[in-house]
Amino acid sequence: MMAQEVIAKKRDGLELTGDEIGGFISGYVRGEVADYQASAFLMATYIRGMTARETAALTRAMANSGETLDLIAGGIPADAPTLDKHSTGGVGDKTSLIVVPLMAAAGAFVCKMSGRGLGHTGGTLDKLESIPGFRIGLSPDEMVRQVRKIGACLAGQTDTLAPADKKLYSLRDATATVGCLPLIVSSILSKKLAAGAKSFLFDVKVGDGALIRTVEEAEALAHALVDGAVASGRRATAVLSDMDAPLGNAIGNALEIDEAISLLSPSVPDAKKNPRLKEICLTLAGEALSLCGISASPETGRNYAGTLLQSGAGLEKLRDIILAQGGDADVIDNPAKVLPQAPVLLPFVADTAGYIRKISARRVGEIVVRLGGGRERKEDKINPSVGMVLAKSIGGMVQRGDTIAVIHASSVSAAQEAATELRKSVQIGDMMAPPSPLIGNVLRK
Amino acid sequence: MMAQEVIAKKRDGLELTGDEIGGFISGYVRGEVADYQASAFLMATYIRGMTARETAALTRAMANSGETLDLIAGGIPADAPTLDKHSTGGVGDKTSLIVVPLMAAAGAFVCKMSGRGLGHTGGTLDKLESIPGFRIGLSPDEMVRQVRKIGACLAGQTDTLAPADKKLYSLRDATATVGCLPLIVSSILSKKLAAGAKSFLFDVKVGDGALIRTVEEAEALAHALVDGAVASGRRATAVLSDMDAPLGNAIGNALEIDEAISLLSPSVPDAKKNPRLKEICLTLAGEALSLCGISASPETGRNYAGTLLQSGAGLEKLRDIILAQGGDADVIDNPAKVLPQAPVLLPFVADTAGYIRKISARRVGEIVVRLGGGRERKEDKINPSVGMVLAKSIGGMVQRGDTIAVIHASSVSAAQEAATELRKSVQIGDMMAPPSPLIGNVLRK
Repeated sequence: MMAQEVIAKKRDGLELTGDEIGGFISGYVRGEVADYQASAFLMATYIRGMTARETAALTRAMANSGETLDLIAGGIPADAPTLDKHSTGGVGDKTSLIVVPLMAAAGAFVCKMSGRGLGHTGGTLDKLESIPGFRIGLSPDEMVRQVRKIGACLAGQTDTLAPADKKLYSLRDATATVGCLPLIVSSILSKKLAAGAKSFLFDVKVGDGALIRTVEEAEALAHALVDGAVASGRRATAVLSDMDAPLGNAIGNALEIDEAISLLSPSVPDAKKNPRLKEICLTLAGEALSLCGISASPETGRNYAGTLLQSGAGLEKLRDIILAQGGDADVIDNPAKVLPQAPVLLPFVADTAGYIRKISARRVGEIVVRLGGGRERKEDKINPSVGMVLAKSIGGMVQRGDTIAVIHASSVSAAQEAATELRKSVQIGDMMAPPSPLIGNVLRK
Repeated sequence: MMAQEVIAKKRDGLELTGDEIGGFISGYVRGEVADYQASAFLMATYIRGMTARETAALTRAMANSGETLDLIAGGIPADAPTLDKHSTGGVGDKTSLIVVPLMAAAGAFVCKMSGRGLGHTGGTLDKLESIPGFRIGLSPDEMVRQVRKIGACLAGQTDTLAPADKKLYSLRDATATVGCLPLIVSSILSKKLAAGAKSFLFDVKVGDGALIRTVEEAEALAHALVDGAVASGRRATAVLSDMDAPLGNAIGNALEIDEAISLLSPSVPDAKKNPRLKEICLTLAGEALSLCGISASPETGRNYAGTLLQSGAGLEKLRDIILAQGGDADVIDNPAKVLPQAPVLLPFVADTAGYIRKISARRVGEIVVRLGGGRERKEDKINPSVGMVLAKSIGGMVQRGDTIAVIHASSVSAAQEAATELRKSVQIGDMMAPPSPLIGNVLRK
């Protein structure tokens, strides 16, 4: 099998065999297939597509391209409810920080590896690193040990798992082959397969602030992810959820940690919690508890998750995780004291009375990146303290002068620049516009 | 302009601007665009195609990616008839060795850069190097000086001309993007544009032994080449010619030099010259003389070329070229003494009486490669003495035992192996089958 022949077959729109795909990927990881051959393959795949069978073969080849986590060898019982969660990413999406502790509190084992923020979307790792001392760089052994002991870890993707994905992913950005379903699916699934859980929960974000803008594309991705997981012997559920508006009130790394702690805190009154954030966390947790067999149905799972939220069991589990990973666990009780604070707080007020009709998630994400809270390039450093906290949501009524958001910035000029941009991103009108439905279709297999 | 954006536009089937293509190519030559980005671009181009405007822009960008020959600055008058010739390659194709001297003898200036053989097709450079001392590695200055002095050179492509083509060409082989019209056209034309002649003669080979198998594809290529040349302010003619059977009697490097000398020699009787080889050389020379304005029409050009052949002026010009490039010019008068001779000559005889219906050019080419006369990989060394000389042509009648060809080999076993293969490549039947027409459509612009 020569690399050229595999490329030519895909170029001509023919279906590749599992052996052909496997040989190409393992050759690529060994360095026998060059980057320029892989990128020709990626472009041919982008244009010609892949069958479900090819996508499954590509996923398996990538999953097996390096080390795989063996949870059972690490002491987690073979029949234990092991779970993984993946969000396709958005603005203000801190659900992993809430759902993973709730799952562990319910007795699930969640070895969760996350990514960093890039472009307008945030990343769980960046958020966690705003907690002083928090260590995201766990070895595979450390991860499994921690998961066995306390039920969860929140760590960075290791280089040894699915190295083919790492190599291909960095090529895709430079070769305009990012937005291609079989490549997206195999990238997500291969890492999940290598991480060893039996059930996968996918949160597929759709809208202005997500990578995927239309419900049709999101449903196609949800189907492909769930089918791909099932083809590899796993159980999976995909939830479509809205990303037209930012999720929750806080956008920015430390600010999102603060909001996650607040949502998990029984002492914080419900009126101070963002209802959409709470709703999606309970939905995801309910689906996950049902998926991995702890609860009989998504509904009973959701109720159970609500109980764990109210009892503070979720918050205590988050404390355990922070402690286990070297973070300052005092953040749970005194977030304002422990988390970095921006020096400048600038309220952003309504310049007219009316209903808030739109808060663009994408533009809010971009504003936070410009404030220093995200990355435009991989090598950029981020400032964990900056961002914004929304005081109003879509559909809410404001009077002229009411605070819509508070901008957290490193300087007055940066805050003012953000306010100018935010003015273009928030629409106020005479007629009330209800927010987009939060939860779309749920796909269970 | 970012490389990704250019790739994405081509990926989506949109037309690129000249600036976008120019920026991409110059970025690639400067090393700012990576090989893996170029290969993604090549694959997108392979699948999506290019408009005539895009192909012209790509051609210009490649032509201008390095040095260009300035014939006028080198002392060749601005209104002089400068000509270049390109054959798409075949088996036994030694027309450049005959047509270029005839053109120079007629007063044209021909700075001809050729390639090496790869796969089953031969290369002019390899053939020339079978003449002891012959130097193909002329600098651009040396080429122009020689062309001004004696009207022609036969040299290797230099690294400084159209370096973008060299870089892209080596990528295409490894990424399954060879057989793509805009890429083929821009590769051929960019080198010709950089070499500075005003008129281009294209010999587009079609058939079993050519890179292009069908007349439709050959016509598409001929049109694209001629249109592209005209779009860049040159005149051009394309001749379609047959490559189902090997061209001429000799296949193999030294053997083809011998045949070229023989065809140019007035002392060799016409009966000993291969009629199809003579026919195509006179056709090409006639078209070329008309194209560059030396003759009033292809017909008068052809007559003029015939005169130069009969007078020995073409042969003397070949002698001048060999002398100028350090070769042993005694090869003109004593080819058998000067050219390397294979130690084993094995006649291949008819095993039955009948008409020769087929001699597969491709398979004959492959047999000569296996005898050592060609390359399967670029790094292979070749043996200039081996090959075969056909004694019969398609349509000819044989009796059992008649010699069809003489195999020139380095060993008896190699010769016998070649004979076994040749047996499968020559068809003899009861009914006479005329050979395919030698000359197809001619496209003049």
